[in-house]
Amino acid sequence: MLRVAIVGGSGYTGIELLRILKLHPQADVVAVTSRKYAGHPVGEVFPSLHGYDGLLFTEPDVKYLTRSAEWIFTAVPHKAAMSVVPQFLEAGLRVIDLSADFRLRDSRTYETWYQAHAAPEQLDRAVYGLPEIYRKDIAHAQLVANPGCYPTGAILPLAPLLHSGIVSPKGIIADSKSGASGAGRSPSPGTIYCEVNESLKAYKVAEHRHMPEIEQELSVAAGRPVAVTFTPHLVPMTRGILTTIYARLTREVSTGKVLVAIKDFYEDSPFVRVFPEGAFPDVSYVRGSNFCDIGARVDGHTNTLILVSAIDNLVKGASGQAVQNLNIMAGLDESLGLDTVPLYP
Amino acid sequence: MLRVAIVGGSGYTGIELLRILKLHPQADVVAVTSRKYAGHPVGEVFPSLHGYDGLLFTEPDVKYLTRSAEWIFTAVPHKAAMSVVPQFLEAGLRVIDLSADFRLRDSRTYETWYQAHAAPEQLDRAVYGLPEIYRKDIAHAQLVANPGCYPTGAILPLAPLLHSGIVSPKGIIADSKSGASGAGRSPSPGTIYCEVNESLKAYKVAEHRHMPEIEQELSVAAGRPVAVTFTPHLVPMTRGILTTIYARLTREVSTGKVLVAIKDFYEDSPFVRVFPEGAFPDVSYVRGSNFCDIGARVDGHTNTLILVSAIDNLVKGASGQAVQNLNIMAGLDESLGLDTVPLYP
Amino acid sequence: MLRVAIVGGSGYTGIELLRILKLHPQADVVAVTSRKYAGHPVGEVFPSLHGYDGLLFTEPDVKYLTRSAEWIFTAVPHKAAMSVVPQFLEAGLRVIDLSADFRLRDSRTYETWYQAHAAPEQLDRAVYGLPEIYRKDIAHAQLVANPGCYPTGAILPLAPLLHSGIVSPKGIIADSKSGASGAGRSPSPGTIYCEVNESLKAYKVAEHRHMPEIEQELSVAAGRPVAVTFTPHLVPMTRGILTTIYARLTREVSTGKVLVAIKDFYEDSPFVRVFPEGAFPDVSYVRGSNFCDIGARVDGHTNTLILVSAIDNLVKGASGQAVQNLNIMAGLDESLGLDTVPLYP
Amino acid sequence: MLRVAIVGGSGYTGIELLRILKLHPQADVVAVTSRKYAGHPVGEVFPSLHGYDGLLFTEPDVKYLTRSAEWIFTAVPHKAAMSVVPQFLEAGLRVIDLSADFRLRDSRTYETWYQAHAAPEQLDRAVYGLPEIYRKDIAHAQLVANPGCYPTGAILPLAPLLHSGIVSPKGIIADSKSGASGAGRSPSPGTIYCEVNESLKAYKVAEHRHMPEIEQELSVAAGRPVAVTFTPHLVPMTRGILTTIYARLTREVSTGKVLVAIKDFYEDSPFVRVFPEGAFPDVSYVRGSNFCDIGARVDGHTNTLILVSAIDNLVKGASGQAVQNLNIMAGLDESLGLDTVPLYP
Repeated sequence: MLRVAIVGGSGYTGIELLRILKLHPQADVVAVTSRKYAGHPVGEVFPSLHGYDGLLFTEPDVKYLTRSAEWIFTAVPHKAAMSVVPQFLEAGLRVIDLSADFRLRDSRTYETWYQAHAAPEQLDRAVYGLPEIYRKDIAHAQLVANPGCYPTGAILPLAPLLHSGIVSPKGIIADSKSGASGAGRSPSPGTIYCEVNESLKAYKVAEHRHMPEIEQELSVAAGRPVAVTFTPHLVPMTRGILTTIYARLTREVSTGKVLVAIKDFYEDSPFVRVFPEGAFPDVSYVRGSNFCDIGARVDGHTNTLILVSAIDNLVKGASGQAVQNLNIMAGLDESLGLDTVPLYP
Repeated sequence: MLRVAIVGGSGYTGIELLRILKLHPQADVVAVTSRKYAGHPVGEVFPSLHGYDGLLFTEPDVKYLTRSAEWIFTAVPHKAAMSVVPQFLEAGLRVIDLSADFRLRDSRTYETWYQAHAAPEQLDRAVYGLPEIYRKDIAHAQLVANPGCYPTGAILPLAPLLHSGIVSPKGIIADSKSGASGAGRSPSPGTIYCEVNESLKAYKVAEHRHMPEIEQELSVAAGRPVAVTFTPHLVPMTRGILTTIYARLTREVSTGKVLVAIKDFYEDSPFVRVFPEGAFPDVSYVRGSNFCDIGARVDGHTNTLILVSAIDNLVKGASGQAVQNLNIMAGLDESLGLDTVPLYP
Repeated sequence: MLRVAIVGGSGYTGIELLRILKLHPQADVVAVTSRKYAGHPVGEVFPSLHGYDGLLFTEPDVKYLTRSAEWIFTAVPHKAAMSVVPQFLEAGLRVIDLSADFRLRDSRTYETWYQAHAAPEQLDRAVYGLPEIYRKDIAHAQLVANPGCYPTGAILPLAPLLHSGIVSPKGIIADSKSGASGAGRSPSPGTIYCEVNESLKAYKVAEHRHMPEIEQELSVAAGRPVAVTFTPHLVPMTRGILTTIYARLTREVSTGKVLVAIKDFYEDSPFVRVFPEGAFPDVSYVRGSNFCDIGARVDGHTNTLILVSAIDNLVKGASGQAVQNLNIMAGLDESLGLDTVPLYP
Repeated sequence: MLRVAIVGGSGYTGIELLRILKLHPQADVVAVTSRKYAGHPVGEVFPSLHGYDGLLFTEPDVKYLTRSAEWIFTAVPHKAAMSVVPQFLEAGLRVIDLSADFRLRDSRTYETWYQAHAAPEQLDRAVYGLPEIYRKDIAHAQLVANPGCYPTGAILPLAPLLHSGIVSPKGIIADSKSGASGAGRSPSPGTIYCEVNESLKAYKVAEHRHMPEIEQELSVAAGRPVAVTFTPHLVPMTRGILTTIYARLTREVSTGKVLVAIKDFYEDSPFVRVFPEGAFPDVSYVRGSNFCDIGARVDGHTNTLILVSAIDNLVKGASGQAVQNLNIMAGLDESLGLDTVPLYP
């Protein structure tokens, strides 16, 4: 059994890690931290997690954690993550960091979008934890930077097409629509029920921090710099991100061929489901699961390729992907503990 | 492996059976019927069920079903159920019927609330499939009448207290609030999104068909006739029933004692979770799971006991309970395939 | 034109006052306070209120307010209200207080449920602002205590029946279901979108502060002490309270007679709509309006009367009722500025 | 008073016309048709419309309607509209048609996207009812083709910029997100609550019928053919359309200049609100109102202009715009009866 600790267990990604790992046949959560709930049983604080009967939230004590666990999930906000991750690495543990702190390879880009980086030397060692692209590197990584939710939904449909040159690196637009759980569990004026319900808006238009992350990975796929116009929207639902992507085709190509190109690329990736021509994803088809569903259509009259992807932002966009990374790092089947059926309706 | 067939696989309870059984380690769905989708792969019609790759919906052909399966779930509307269930029984199969057709023991009561009964002789043989109460009878039954969603939420909190006489059989009120999935997948003017969203109403006030079912079982628990005032409400959410029950106490008793009485009664029932004093259930704590959560408080100033229960109407209120019955009938651990963690948030 | 000021204009009841008064033909909002937004134009902070072009939020400066306005709405939390209301009264202004501070006539009851009262001498002078009951007293009051949202929905259906003795003062149960706007605009862990959406729970079971307020007014109606079992619930919707009431009949009476009794009582009350037999209210029929809709059914088999009322908690449950009180106090038609059509769907 | 009849009064746009006209100071609804509800009082069928006390739904009898009314709103589906509109025109009435039947000027385009046209000769006479663009023509029109909901949200932000040449006619993308009321009141499998709630999907990708309508009007604005990539999405909310538009700039221009260009263009249009730089629309700011809110940002790093518009699809996207057209046709202030304040929250 893998002895796993979760640092930051009371946010939505932490809770989701607890939910998923509860049924993981090869992993044991030996510790979970929360300053707020330290001393309280997990199942008392979150009745949905009843069943973790012996497990109490603890203070985030690094010594205790390094003694108890071999694997660490850091599910704390960026900035907090980079101050604690190096300590776990130094103690020889393997870490999957769900924050943004180790995703950008260039510390200057990080500093432009976030703040000064406290551990820039780790950026080279960290592996970007998108298993469908970096599976082999992840297997041997000591530190995996779990991707952002929006980047996961934007990169997966585009990477195969940029890689093969079907799609131009110029003029890519990603219009993403996210449920409110992406904003986390901390109350703020904009996330209370009455502000989100029956509401719909774009936010951080052309200035969201996930933009450089998307551009970094699409540039790798294309083999040259890719700039993306990225607009996130907040939608009145709890889970799910739907990303509608508009891209220019480099040559005349049918919808069917585009779908085949994507399907072939992900042949060995159990969590990418490519839809048949004419069918499109819906976030309700992936709820609670680690799937990324992809659909496509060539709009002949404007020569534009329209791609649509759907993920559950808390699963494939965060905690499920993190467990997928754990499996790969530990040499297990990457689907272990993740073969749930989406909760529909 | 148990060879299982589902008759009526394209309604919400049928889909939910497919979802649950997909991960059941001892059951195989060998056939699933749907007139509407006959010939289509399950995973094509419902992309959330991708993975049932070989399984196609078929016409409801009794001969084919009795040859293929040993266990039948009938997930068709009442009236349709009673016309087909006897054929399966005659062929020696064991049946779990999710309709209302075999729940009422008295055919006259059935006929008052539904219509003429086509197989009244089966009413005596059918066992009411509430495992927490009838576990032993279920084990040997050929036909189990899976309880209604509202009755499950109303009976479980009350049965122990009526049984022990803590609560008076007179003056019981059950005020239930249900999500919209209880109304099924067939479109109707009242169930379209814009009519349910931002809406809240009572319906079938004092005339809902689940009332005689609740009364039948509470009368068994009390050992004498119990009449209940029952008001169902439709709430803008997909899953979940919260039932708030008001009952008169026969003697002065503390909240703590009430909770202990319930807890003791369900000591060996893994799916009933009794909340500590001061805490109350929320449907979001049971979403996607087979739990029935129960809380209680004695309102001293009116000498009224307030009980609150929460279930997922599609799981403990329908398909999960049906699988729990299957497990018991087959001599398996009743939790098999049902040990999921609720999807929160 | 009535010169009106709103103290506390950035909470939901304050915003709703601004919305309603914008179209009031006889009232001008001359000042609106908000510490948080002082100096900012109303229409910039709340784009829905675009059109209040000259109006800026100001600091809550009593001197300035008493100079500018003749009528004051205090839409601040309890405790804050009782510290400021006496200053306006002393300056000769007429005040409609939307907080709980002047609703309870007995300062000891207030102190049991809230805290020490800073202006107990005003409790006698304050008139409970339920126009359908206290219209005449309101007309001459200097201070009107605008009723709570739950009390409005519970008192209106019951008052006529307790007054006439059709219903017993014993054993009354009020099971209320409220949308989330009742919890206000201040962010808190329990009111963020993901905690309310797809969630349903009872809260403050048998200990909500609106209980003594309901009991006070029902006791007046009955002419003797009435105790009520009151359970509020939080429902995933923005606006609306549905209250389901269970009461014992003192004699055999038909549903029709009950409805007539209520209808007659409210003959001159334009905002109470009594539904015909067989029809029941829905919060979606009153959204954005000042109506209180009422339906009833006698459950013969348990001799229980079931009443259902629906209001928009921000309108008839708060700001609309406050404007209705303003109209009455100012000698205007009580419907002025309130004759909107509910927003359905 | 304008004597107005509504043909098709029981769909959401018909109900919304009734809601708006109820408070219109210069219009009287003298007849409203509905085959389904003929003979029933409007306020009984739709309790929100209580107050239309004398008004009953009638059969759609053209003779009766032409005798009773001078103004006709046809709120029936396309195809039904074109069979009845010519009869009203012949009788000398003035008609505002809310269907798609008279919006496309080219009957061949109509026949490509819909079906054979029954009254092609009227296409030339019909005026496209977007008052902000065609105000003068509308004033004298006998037949106004009220625009589609998506086109309204896409055309208003783009027209000024195409007209002035700031934006290229090539490469325009409109990504629209609509609430479920756009799908109407007729129940269908895809519009029931459980299918829309917690769901999000694109539909009719690059093949929605509003695409040619958008292109027709953008081509007029640009003075040359414009092709648009248009993707509608269904969002779990009742009212509102948010449209995010991506366009290529023909020259370097600041966000501020773009906003000024739009603002100047709509200087005399009371229902277009242009947001200041850095602020963006939200459908919750326009709920229940006739506003179209517009925001913009130039994404310098890709030289892309991002425009966001928000409307209430039932008001500015349908019935409110229809009443605005009525006002203009009748020589009244175009805001009459439409000066409501959006319902927030």
